[in-house]
Amino acid sequence: MALFTEETSESAVNSRMGEDVNPRLATVMASLVKHLHAFAKDVELTQEEWGVAIDFLTRTGQMCDENRQEFILLSDTLGVSMLVDAINHRRPSGATENTVLGPFHVADAPHYPMGQIISLDGKGESCLFEGRVIDRQGSPIENATIDVWCDNADGYYDVQQPDVQPKFNNRGIFTTSSDGTYSFRGIRPVAYPIPDDGPVGQMLAALGRHPNRPAHMHFIVSAPGYERIITHTFVDGDEWLTSDAVFGVKASLISTMEPGEEGDTMWKSSFDFIMVEQD
Amino acid sequence: MALFTEETSESAVNSRMGEDVNPRLATVMASLVKHLHAFAKDVELTQEEWGVAIDFLTRTGQMCDENRQEFILLSDTLGVSMLVDAINHRRPSGATENTVLGPFHVADAPHYPMGQIISLDGKGESCLFEGRVIDRQGSPIENATIDVWCDNADGYYDVQQPDVQPKFNNRGIFTTSSDGTYSFRGIRPVAYPIPDDGPVGQMLAALGRHPNRPAHMHFIVSAPGYERIITHTFVDGDEWLTSDAVFGVKASLISTMEPGEEGDTMWKSSFDFIMVEQD
Repeated sequence: MALFTEETSESAVNSRMGEDVNPRLATVMASLVKHLHAFAKDVELTQEEWGVAIDFLTRTGQMCDENRQEFILLSDTLGVSMLVDAINHRRPSGATENTVLGPFHVADAPHYPMGQIISLDGKGESCLFEGRVIDRQGSPIENATIDVWCDNADGYYDVQQPDVQPKFNNRGIFTTSSDGTYSFRGIRPVAYPIPDDGPVGQMLAALGRHPNRPAHMHFIVSAPGYERIITHTFVDGDEWLTSDAVFGVKASLISTMEPGEEGDTMWKSSFDFIMVEQD
Repeated sequence: MALFTEETSESAVNSRMGEDVNPRLATVMASLVKHLHAFAKDVELTQEEWGVAIDFLTRTGQMCDENRQEFILLSDTLGVSMLVDAINHRRPSGATENTVLGPFHVADAPHYPMGQIISLDGKGESCLFEGRVIDRQGSPIENATIDVWCDNADGYYDVQQPDVQPKFNNRGIFTTSSDGTYSFRGIRPVAYPIPDDGPVGQMLAALGRHPNRPAHMHFIVSAPGYERIITHTFVDGDEWLTSDAVFGVKASLISTMEPGEEGDTMWKSSFDFIMVEQD
């Protein structure tokens, strides 16, 4: 009779799985049990600490609703979201890197012609975003769609302030023509804290960590035959660039804010997206 | 600038902790991040699987209320509860072993004289529970309290059926005198499934596991100067003895059901509790 002991705990649990389990599920769960048990053993978790963890996880689940996903915030702040993104988007050197999607994308932003102003609330420092969508040989990619979004000058996305900001403020979708170039006019993004009035905020405070993200513009770049890029460009020089609360910054995604041209925008941010062909 | 990469993910997250963090919290969280990241890397977790996990955890939290603790069930069914119990209750050979408390203990059960009948609903096969509370030298322990509870013949605890069962059905607290013996009359416990109509039940089904616990009587044995024992005795021969859904069975806790004495109870279960002096 193979009963559970401290020494055999992992195999006691994993040997309990049935015969007809989905093989991938079996692999994932066996690894989860292995690492969970190793964690409890490594730190000799006390029953009081276990109770704190049960309570924390329960409150995290109960903080979630249609506008708030506290478990994603937890995953983000423990670096798990970025790690999963990294594992699933290994790209050849030179190709534009991914970063986290974040919770503020919306599916139905308006399609605009190149050059359009996407900032609808009249706030913030105006900024021209421009560049090219190209392949790894430097050839322009036609019919690439560029879906962009960022916070407003107060540090909130439109969906966080439906009664304050115009709908689709600082959002838009653009499509490249044969030269692969893009341009749109928005604002210089500003840094903001992730929502920190829940269990994850309490965790960050207990760990001596701040909740801030450095200023960034979100991009989803898609084109037929190429791997989709989900990424941000980060404003160089931002105070939080080396301490992003969700670990989203990659050196290749940092973009310099240059002065804009007279009579147009205050700032200009240039960035080329280099796409990889799908297998 | 030390930014997050797939290779450096653990140190990128753990180096973010502040200077004045509680040292034990820092140790526990650093180990948690290490093992969580190792898990994601070992299985190369996909973003779809990550999404399933986020949804599962969210639903688990939202299943919890004052009568249901789905995260404890999750911990129980992954062997984490038993592991934490084992880590925190290593006892010398011969001493009575612990097992999980479970969610059905109540603090204010009635105090009864030895020999009392605790089954109040008239259901089930009657059983005499008896034995001694002794130290490791075999000497009786006076003034030990024995707090007992079990399910009824339908497989439910009274607190699961407040409108059906009498309050404190199959519960009671007893105190030993100088001879250290105890006895009470209840029913032969029956096997039952843990609540499986939530996310944890879905997980068990996907893993080809049943939700059943073998029949058992719960005991908390306390005495001044001795380590408290939280344990069960399990009915020998039970169908689920080697596959308890929460891994609670230890060989030393299995007790034979003997025929009762004529005119008393149908069954008799004898078990001695051997306590360890506190440090």
